[in-house]
Amino acid sequence: MPRRPQLSNAARPSTFTVEARDESGEAVPTPVAGEHPLTVYVDKQEILTLMTLGAAPEALTIGWLRNQRLVNSLDDIVAVNVDWEVNAVAVTTRNGLVNLEEKMQKRTKTTGCGQGTVFGDLMADLEDIKLPADARLKEETLFGLLNNVRLHETIYKQAGAVHGCALAQGENILTFVEDVGRHNAVDAIAGWMWLEGVDGADKIFYTTGRLTSEMVIKAAQMGIPFLVSRSGLTQMGYEIAKQVGITMIGRAVNRHYLLFTGTDRFVK
Amino acid sequence: MPRRPQLSNAARPSTFTVEARDESGEAVPTPVAGEHPLTVYVDKQEILTLMTLGAAPEALTIGWLRNQRLVNSLDDIVAVNVDWEVNAVAVTTRNGLVNLEEKMQKRTKTTGCGQGTVFGDLMADLEDIKLPADARLKEETLFGLLNNVRLHETIYKQAGAVHGCALAQGENILTFVEDVGRHNAVDAIAGWMWLEGVDGADKIFYTTGRLTSEMVIKAAQMGIPFLVSRSGLTQMGYEIAKQVGITMIGRAVNRHYLLFTGTDRFVK
Repeated sequence: MPRRPQLSNAARPSTFTVEARDESGEAVPTPVAGEHPLTVYVDKQEILTLMTLGAAPEALTIGWLRNQRLVNSLDDIVAVNVDWEVNAVAVTTRNGLVNLEEKMQKRTKTTGCGQGTVFGDLMADLEDIKLPADARLKEETLFGLLNNVRLHETIYKQAGAVHGCALAQGENILTFVEDVGRHNAVDAIAGWMWLEGVDGADKIFYTTGRLTSEMVIKAAQMGIPFLVSRSGLTQMGYEIAKQVGITMIGRAVNRHYLLFTGTDRFVK
Repeated sequence: MPRRPQLSNAARPSTFTVEARDESGEAVPTPVAGEHPLTVYVDKQEILTLMTLGAAPEALTIGWLRNQRLVNSLDDIVAVNVDWEVNAVAVTTRNGLVNLEEKMQKRTKTTGCGQGTVFGDLMADLEDIKLPADARLKEETLFGLLNNVRLHETIYKQAGAVHGCALAQGENILTFVEDVGRHNAVDAIAGWMWLEGVDGADKIFYTTGRLTSEMVIKAAQMGIPFLVSRSGLTQMGYEIAKQVGITMIGRAVNRHYLLFTGTDRFVK
């Protein structure tokens, strides 16, 4: 297991209450989700600004660097310090970032409005991904997980403006991250997996959000054979899921689901 | 009214059917939303790749350039030609883009994962925005609009993986755009407004998506005093709505709603 970096512990409250007026004219105190800019500095160089709920800013930062492949292992990160006074996170690395200039250049050209990440880059490495063929998920395990997710979704129930992602082993949720953007939540999971030394091969990735191309690619890159969503999917999400052979399940609520791809790993 | 650019008319089918298996073991043909890369070239220079449903690619391209303030008026655009054979759109301008290098540089530093746009840039111009103080929206008009939206949401009902935005005058929907990302749908509306010579001052912007900072900023920049969503909002969306004085209504479904800001323009 790699050396763990020095970390701040700067989670913010997830919801705030504002006053609204409803159709009956009543004042209604309404919880809303937090949304904060967090500017990432690596070795004192400004990289970008993330908009985040702020629930897991250290894991988010590490996972973003991981998923952009700007760092190759957790061992390259010496410290991650979040300071909400200035809405910034300072990352210290051992040897700098990997191909920063080239990747920033590429990002400039390929960042999509609906994607917010290095799409061309993500696609490039797909062919190297081998997901475990012998992993299995039983239907009853899926139902157990869906029930555990339902019990877990506290912020969504309160404020209704966040997406949630969970990493599970069997029906047990190992970590659950919520954020204002799906991409942040999946990045924070990737950061958590590095910090905890957790491998994806026997895990299930659950998301409340839609299964777009980017979600499928990131789950596959984390080496996770099972991808489950409460929501629908897109055509490109479907095509990529077929290509990488991930087991993809959508519309998963209570005891209902639709199994789209990678059916051999699913056991009724 | 400015000269209208030469445009292709390359809308794609919005949904595709894939085979899934449900919990009873039945094969279920399932409509999924299209998702296609669309690489934007301006005067033969590659700018970025958008991921889109493809329902309004010309308006999306124009609106993206407008909302990034890379063009100052429709008159600057000579032609917009989408070619799905190569997943590209070629834009020809009269005089090139505004401050392209500077803005691309800035975008590199400020694009957020959950945002996908020039956040710092968007915030910068907020102070110049003056929304009409005398515009009014009656509660019955809102209810009429919500009913019209309900009737209109065909793609969402089919495939469930897209966001919708509508521009309305009173309860009448002028245009309704759906896309895989909220940001695309709002950009396509901005493009449509330019193409049709439509001003925002007496309009209502409706979105199925959450009222994040970016949605509030874009609606305000389009000069629209009313912002209505079926979903919730974020803390920064709320703070910015207060600052620009937009009338913001969330959780608007059937005859229910929550009125958050700009209450003077709303008439029960």
